[in-house]
Amino acid sequence: MNVSIDLCVVPIGVGVSLSPYIAECQRVLDQAGLKTSLHAYGTNIEGDWDEVMAAVKTCHEAVHKMGAPRITTTIKLGTRTDRDQTMDEKVESVLAKK
Amino acid sequence: MNVSIDLCVVPIGVGVSLSPYIAECQRVLDQAGLKTSLHAYGTNIEGDWDEVMAAVKTCHEAVHKMGAPRITTTIKLGTRTDRDQTMDEKVESVLAKK
Amino acid sequence: MNVSIDLCVVPIGVGVSLSPYIAECQRVLDQAGLKTSLHAYGTNIEGDWDEVMAAVKTCHEAVHKMGAPRITTTIKLGTRTDRDQTMDEKVESVLAKK
Amino acid sequence: MNVSIDLCVVPIGVGVSLSPYIAECQRVLDQAGLKTSLHAYGTNIEGDWDEVMAAVKTCHEAVHKMGAPRITTTIKLGTRTDRDQTMDEKVESVLAKK
Repeated sequence: MNVSIDLCVVPIGVGVSLSPYIAECQRVLDQAGLKTSLHAYGTNIEGDWDEVMAAVKTCHEAVHKMGAPRITTTIKLGTRTDRDQTMDEKVESVLAKK
Repeated sequence: MNVSIDLCVVPIGVGVSLSPYIAECQRVLDQAGLKTSLHAYGTNIEGDWDEVMAAVKTCHEAVHKMGAPRITTTIKLGTRTDRDQTMDEKVESVLAKK
Repeated sequence: MNVSIDLCVVPIGVGVSLSPYIAECQRVLDQAGLKTSLHAYGTNIEGDWDEVMAAVKTCHEAVHKMGAPRITTTIKLGTRTDRDQTMDEKVESVLAKK
Repeated sequence: MNVSIDLCVVPIGVGVSLSPYIAECQRVLDQAGLKTSLHAYGTNIEGDWDEVMAAVKTCHEAVHKMGAPRITTTIKLGTRTDRDQTMDEKVESVLAKK
């Protein structure tokens, strides 16, 4: 089962500068070989459910290892059985109708 | 690694009545033996990361099997290394300070 | 237009103990006269769109005033034109089908 | 008070093709004169709190007017008092540390 997610990891208890932790998550996702697209409030990721979710877990482990005692993450997560649709196709589909 | 999540599964393409699908997810979570608490906009779940996330995947599979061609889910997901805190303790901690 | 929301306010840069800030938000919502229900990962709120959203803004202002330099909030927000449905009815509708 | 949000509007009861509704929301946001950035699972928006939230309400009204009887929306919403940071700067800050 393929999944398309939007991931937003928020470390708590490390001050206000969160970008080093987000950069570490980007490295984790790259090492997992996943297709990603960073935006200002999260990261779009697509791939096999188990691979994507394993990478999300590795992100949490990595951010804790950097010293964050607490993490709150928001994930939007889409699956569909009617057809395949990539992240790029979703954006194009909206722009074509605008 | 323990996790505390808030799960909101939204089947798309099945009309406006979503409660039969949410009820099916409740059955999936019960069968997984997870501690849950249903509220008006989702379900709180706590447990081992792998067990909780496996149940979320089973929810998606079950809702697709019921006929939903598309699902969009929102998950809030918390982990902490500083101490254990149950869902009940989180609520009590707020109420004690109110 | 009535709205049913799930609100989760996360102050950043104030350490790991967030409950004093959530308790302050509860006071703001109570003073606004809104119907609310606290759970382990947020607060369900229902009411008139403008009143609910004004209260969310007041929560942000109050949490900043308490000293939080940064806040990230997650809101799920539902509206419907087909019928009225309270938060309690949403939960009962799921439980009746379980 | 400035705000940076990530908006994901999901019409329910209109079948599986949601892009016409998202395109309508893009038009609403453009007409409001807001700075936006569309991605595969939402739209980043930044601006004055009241202007941004008024546009979100107009999106709901417009999507209902198109025929959607029910809408569920997810919003991530950030404010900060320590400094200004644009959407572009947030992305650049992560990439610089990667």
